[in-house]
Amino acid sequence: MTDAERLARAYLLRVAEPPALALHRFVAEHGPVEAADRVREAAVPESVAAETAARRDLDRAEHDLESAAEHGARLVIPEDDEWPAWPLLSLEVASGRGVKGMAPPLALWVRGSASLDDALDSAVAIVGARAATDYGENTAAEFAYELTDAGMTVVSGAAYGIDGAAHRGSLAADGVTVAVLGCGLDVGYPAGHVRLLDRVAQCGAVVSEYPPGTQPARHRFLVRNRLIAALSAGTVVVEAGCRSGAQNTAATAGTLGKVVMAVPGPVGSALSVGCHRLIRRSHAVLVDSVADIVESVGSVGSGLADHGDGPRRHTDGLDPEALRVFEALPSRGGRSPEAVAMESGVELSRVRALLPALELDGLVQRSDNGWRRRPRRITGPTRG
Amino acid sequence: MTDAERLARAYLLRVAEPPALALHRFVAEHGPVEAADRVREAAVPESVAAETAARRDLDRAEHDLESAAEHGARLVIPEDDEWPAWPLLSLEVASGRGVKGMAPPLALWVRGSASLDDALDSAVAIVGARAATDYGENTAAEFAYELTDAGMTVVSGAAYGIDGAAHRGSLAADGVTVAVLGCGLDVGYPAGHVRLLDRVAQCGAVVSEYPPGTQPARHRFLVRNRLIAALSAGTVVVEAGCRSGAQNTAATAGTLGKVVMAVPGPVGSALSVGCHRLIRRSHAVLVDSVADIVESVGSVGSGLADHGDGPRRHTDGLDPEALRVFEALPSRGGRSPEAVAMESGVELSRVRALLPALELDGLVQRSDNGWRRRPRRITGPTRG
Repeated sequence: MTDAERLARAYLLRVAEPPALALHRFVAEHGPVEAADRVREAAVPESVAAETAARRDLDRAEHDLESAAEHGARLVIPEDDEWPAWPLLSLEVASGRGVKGMAPPLALWVRGSASLDDALDSAVAIVGARAATDYGENTAAEFAYELTDAGMTVVSGAAYGIDGAAHRGSLAADGVTVAVLGCGLDVGYPAGHVRLLDRVAQCGAVVSEYPPGTQPARHRFLVRNRLIAALSAGTVVVEAGCRSGAQNTAATAGTLGKVVMAVPGPVGSALSVGCHRLIRRSHAVLVDSVADIVESVGSVGSGLADHGDGPRRHTDGLDPEALRVFEALPSRGGRSPEAVAMESGVELSRVRALLPALELDGLVQRSDNGWRRRPRRITGPTRG
Repeated sequence: MTDAERLARAYLLRVAEPPALALHRFVAEHGPVEAADRVREAAVPESVAAETAARRDLDRAEHDLESAAEHGARLVIPEDDEWPAWPLLSLEVASGRGVKGMAPPLALWVRGSASLDDALDSAVAIVGARAATDYGENTAAEFAYELTDAGMTVVSGAAYGIDGAAHRGSLAADGVTVAVLGCGLDVGYPAGHVRLLDRVAQCGAVVSEYPPGTQPARHRFLVRNRLIAALSAGTVVVEAGCRSGAQNTAATAGTLGKVVMAVPGPVGSALSVGCHRLIRRSHAVLVDSVADIVESVGSVGSGLADHGDGPRRHTDGLDPEALRVFEALPSRGGRSPEAVAMESGVELSRVRALLPALELDGLVQRSDNGWRRRPRRITGPTRG
């Protein structure tokens, strides 16, 4: 836990307030250790300096890792096996398209028994209003229970109302649920959910980008919402007023190419107005049962491509940039990331980020002399 | 009321069970008087004979007209000024496309003070389950009240449950509501709604294709549903189970190019399952307020073209066949229906049916020597 890369990323997580796209790309290009050194020395491009100058002297990495360990937490970094690279690729792709505020996290603080990538292999987010109605909370809990029972992970934000009901429903089914926070894992927020978060950590995971001690703040919840959306195959909004954070999460999920779903409610309920508007404007598909949710997210682990063995498996749904990287790879031998960047015209840092994601999807593999396309099993005439 | 055309159509309405497409086209081609004579003499093509042979000796036209008059009813025929030609054009167009069961009515029995075309100038259908919940009935009544208050006519089927609530809501706003029945106007069905129908007739209209004394039957309700859909700019389904007549009306409205809307309800309510499915499958747009309904139907008097003064007024949205007829007309002088049929390649009977409908939309006009395009007022650069 005290290896150089982990220390470097712990330092960088505290230095830059997320989302920090320039720093993310700087790290992708130079690796975390060199990037951290250069941030400390202020030997960075202007865009990176803008994100890191204010706190670059604040190196509490060892302290943060120790403090986290005392609370039963760990720092999961992209170099770890359990890093959820595939779902987070959606942030990479959105950032590549120029969508603001979608930088992937540099690392994630995690408290809980679950391996993060396993937990998020088949995950659905359930979000909604804090001031929910009984109807909303019952629906969230029931859906979470049934989804968990069907082997899926429920992701939410641990807030009062819908979020809490979703986590509780999942726990009631003895399943894995993941809570993503907008503050440090140790700050005990929201106060009434401290015991709930303990229970979430027992079977699942409590996750945050924010270093120990970081206080909750409105802007951090919005930044956190992108992780809830990214880490799930789809987001279900159970209740939402006219202006609500849940609608923000839904919009982000849509931007990331994830399935956006909304639950209808009685006409006249102020807490269903937001859901109805999402459906009416075709920003969300209506779901009124777990069967609907499962049908909507299908067997898709992310909005980008199909994990299943169906005829759509191959490169269907890949982002154009990912496709360019894929197509720049040889079928035999291997090619270095630098050569792939040259061949594809895609920036080296993006190539370095996309290759492991494509590997996770089974499309490419590492060989002794670089990267190559993975041979495709021929299983029958229905393959695309 | 005893003129030859009315007698002929009263006879034909009893002879053929609606919808009778071959007879409708035969009447369009030969006029009602000659068509009736030839039906009586069995001097008709095979397709017309198939629709009329069983009852052609049953000539009770005078009796039906007298009986109707005793009940305060009248027979409204296409030759009358109050014939709702424009909304019914949707049936003509669908039949022309080969959709089964969409023949326009040969005439309509009407009881009520309202002029039919005025009443239907801006109409919305509200339909739904008979075994509705309080939630559904309250929503139907409230929406009907507000729509009526906004100057629109509410059309429904006078059944128990949602239909009755819709008529009552409209009556509560002292407005015009139209009930379309699947039986004769005099049979007092449904029994519990006899007084409601009296009140509907006082301010609005009770309408049926079926001659006096015709008993209700399941197939007649399905046939009647096409009139509810056709006579309205859009249909709102308030509550519907898995299999319901309201879903049939919604499907028909979609087929006719009308706006199909559905009201959401609580998850878990068996009476909202049908509505949710319509929305989820994009067969209906979600409406959770009268503002939504008005937005959805716009200022459109039918699904085909815009009655308003906006830039879309002209021939936008015309069915290809109607457009062919329009384009076969001269801008000056006039052209006979026969010449238009020749020029456009559209069947003469269809031309005869389409021209009055296009006239109602303000696109064409009769002149001394036939039909011509109506000159367009130029009001500014935004006109299409």
